[in-house]
Amino acid sequence: MPGEGVTVFLELDGQGPRYAQLTRALKAAILDGRLGAGTRLPPTRALARDLEMSRITTLAAYEQLRAEGFIEGHVGSGSYVAAIETKPAPPPSARTIAAPSRYMRRARIVQDRTIGLRHHGLRYNLQYGNPQTHPALSDLWARELARAATYPQPGGSRAQGLLSLREQICDYLARRRGVQARPEDVLIISGTQQAFTLTARVLLDEGDAVVMEEPTYFGARQAFAAHGAKLVPIRTDAEGLVCSALPRKAPRLIYVTPSHQFPSGSVLSLQRRLDLLRYASDHRCWVMEDDYDSEFRYDSRPLAAMRSLDHSDRVIYVGTFSKVMFGSLRLAYMVVPSALRDDFVTAKYLSDFFCPTIEQAALAHFMETGGFERHLRHATKELKARRDALIEGLHRHAGDRVEIANSQAGMHMVAWLRGYDHARAEALIDYAHERGLGLHPMWPHYFKRPARPGLILGYCALSTVELGEAMQVFGRCLDAFD
Amino acid sequence: MPGEGVTVFLELDGQGPRYAQLTRALKAAILDGRLGAGTRLPPTRALARDLEMSRITTLAAYEQLRAEGFIEGHVGSGSYVAAIETKPAPPPSARTIAAPSRYMRRARIVQDRTIGLRHHGLRYNLQYGNPQTHPALSDLWARELARAATYPQPGGSRAQGLLSLREQICDYLARRRGVQARPEDVLIISGTQQAFTLTARVLLDEGDAVVMEEPTYFGARQAFAAHGAKLVPIRTDAEGLVCSALPRKAPRLIYVTPSHQFPSGSVLSLQRRLDLLRYASDHRCWVMEDDYDSEFRYDSRPLAAMRSLDHSDRVIYVGTFSKVMFGSLRLAYMVVPSALRDDFVTAKYLSDFFCPTIEQAALAHFMETGGFERHLRHATKELKARRDALIEGLHRHAGDRVEIANSQAGMHMVAWLRGYDHARAEALIDYAHERGLGLHPMWPHYFKRPARPGLILGYCALSTVELGEAMQVFGRCLDAFD
Repeated sequence: MPGEGVTVFLELDGQGPRYAQLTRALKAAILDGRLGAGTRLPPTRALARDLEMSRITTLAAYEQLRAEGFIEGHVGSGSYVAAIETKPAPPPSARTIAAPSRYMRRARIVQDRTIGLRHHGLRYNLQYGNPQTHPALSDLWARELARAATYPQPGGSRAQGLLSLREQICDYLARRRGVQARPEDVLIISGTQQAFTLTARVLLDEGDAVVMEEPTYFGARQAFAAHGAKLVPIRTDAEGLVCSALPRKAPRLIYVTPSHQFPSGSVLSLQRRLDLLRYASDHRCWVMEDDYDSEFRYDSRPLAAMRSLDHSDRVIYVGTFSKVMFGSLRLAYMVVPSALRDDFVTAKYLSDFFCPTIEQAALAHFMETGGFERHLRHATKELKARRDALIEGLHRHAGDRVEIANSQAGMHMVAWLRGYDHARAEALIDYAHERGLGLHPMWPHYFKRPARPGLILGYCALSTVELGEAMQVFGRCLDAFD
Repeated sequence: MPGEGVTVFLELDGQGPRYAQLTRALKAAILDGRLGAGTRLPPTRALARDLEMSRITTLAAYEQLRAEGFIEGHVGSGSYVAAIETKPAPPPSARTIAAPSRYMRRARIVQDRTIGLRHHGLRYNLQYGNPQTHPALSDLWARELARAATYPQPGGSRAQGLLSLREQICDYLARRRGVQARPEDVLIISGTQQAFTLTARVLLDEGDAVVMEEPTYFGARQAFAAHGAKLVPIRTDAEGLVCSALPRKAPRLIYVTPSHQFPSGSVLSLQRRLDLLRYASDHRCWVMEDDYDSEFRYDSRPLAAMRSLDHSDRVIYVGTFSKVMFGSLRLAYMVVPSALRDDFVTAKYLSDFFCPTIEQAALAHFMETGGFERHLRHATKELKARRDALIEGLHRHAGDRVEIANSQAGMHMVAWLRGYDHARAEALIDYAHERGLGLHPMWPHYFKRPARPGLILGYCALSTVELGEAMQVFGRCLDAFD
């Protein structure tokens, strides 16, 4: 760098506007001491000439350096490097990395973001957890969003969620889930996963016991474990959670999926529902009812939610729009016992204030005008056809080599492999993978690996024809292992 | 209820379809023991006649009761109340409410959802924190959302946020904030508030020290306090945080607002920035730079963010779209030191999986096509006009009865009341409120009430004309207190 006896080589990095490059280069020279405190910088005109840039560029750079405190003085009277101490910090080293929090140490162990998300790009992937895609829904939703975006947003404190959406949810719950709820009992949240985080915050101290079904949903398990809860798995059978096996010592929370046990598919029987509610009331603990895909029930109307039987106000009910609309929507809701309502609203507020308003307003309008109900009917019909195609394909191509579990509801079913141990089942999954068929094992969802290996067959992502073809491939894979 | 010797009075509640009413009424009678186990229900035809409803209705109700396990047997051979034990649970009492978690006990104390949200429905409300509304932006945003909604959503694990949005943010940060970041360093979050929650989770155990500016932003303070951090307020002056007052014993985290101290408005000087980074490096603690409204700077280009000086990778940078777009958008981002990156992604995943994809895609496209930059220029010009109108109004109507703090940037300014104590200032606020003018005090933002009372004057929500009128009212209020 020429002028006034100072020579500093300025290297411009070529990124972004020239004035910004010059500013960065001068900053670097000042910070690393090449341009010391009090050094007079060359006049902008001289610098512009030497660097072959316009004087506007050098002026802009000096102005920025002055605003940020790197140089002092004024154009005309000369610019000087400001008197700042610039001892450079030592470069980062492994030693400088502080230990993670207790939460994070636990989270690092439990988090596995790959469960249920294997096998991308396969021809037939029997993925579960993601809803079917509905091109018609995309168009409807685009219209609802555009409408909601141009509509004025209501102001005020909104941690609990948009009133119009909470009203629609109450109406929906009364009609479809047998649940009587008031808008003030409802909290809008960013997907079911947030329900676990908020519930952990509101109810759980480190070491508090949480009863979970065996097997259970990994999202809940990971969230409660990372929070430091002591997880108490209780076995399930064809009637769901075995209530007689509940611990004598009261847990703080019992997490269940009564309408459609995840992932086994069993439905919690009426007697068990009543037993569980009685247990919760006697032991003064809370029950979280995760009603994640109860909308889809094929051989009868949807069963009423457990919350509808809950006369002691012990059930925290969670419903989601991710399964009936699309997973990237990130809107769900909780119906919260009145004793906990204020705490849940506070926890939501402290976590992220509130959910996006435009999407809430769009959803409220979609429900209010009947579009949601129509979509639900259409989606249920389509899913039933897919389920039937999958069962038919299983019967035809797998025969009695698999045992199909309860498949009256939901978006996936479970097939137990007959005469397989886990090593052989894993080999089968690998073999299928090589042939373009994505199969998903049951065992990652267990605390303790079960005796029998099973598969979760999701039927949302494939058409009825594709499901038939997939089962044909499946049959050939089984043949190879016979 | 007639038939087979059983007489039970069924009261239909008149809500929803008739079959659902009948189902509910029968369930209630079974659950409270009026219809005991083994009782034979009247044939559907007889019941329909007695209740004057169609047989389709009674058939549907029986079918539902059978599906849910309340009755057994089949149409034709008779339906019987199932053998379920129905000891009713005792009604809820205060005694049954378990104690809240430690988190919740702290959260109940610190949460105040009303800070900064007073005075609804006043003629002139000098509200701060919410951005200006832009009717033109609503239309643009409606179009972007509709476009993004019809566009296929990318699949896969998305906790970190949409790649296209992270790329746009890196480009923006390089051009506007002097920050060089790679897309893999960026995490998309649901607003700045979530940055506090995630940072607490990743870094803080109960009792860990967090240095905060005095005064500071209530959202951060509440979140860290609820998490159980030990808050260490350090005073600020016209150059921002007084680094020489930093504690000898290293805190775990230092939370600062360097570009525009909230709410005082001071800008952290270059020397202080370097001192703070040096302190963080020497003491091996982390710095959170909340760059909440740095986009709006009126008398020079925006200053480079502190993160651009951070050669030890100690700064967790947080930027938000709530202030430049609209508050109900709920999208913000963090630039995370590489040592913490995986932990932050895990914490986001465990909290709520990921942010809504359509809004992320819409924003990425809005940025990529230049709409965001145009909006920013327009909004900055408009805000500058409002700030100028507010300053002019203050000079004209308040004169030397107030002292205006640094007002080069942001969406609000601070006016210190000369010759007022707190009691008198509160009386002034009440008096103004009665005359339709919403004034907001500084003191709720302090750990320790400051000697001088000040006001935060937000100029986002009012036009230049309204701001002039508001200052006229303000002057008359001051007159009344002279």
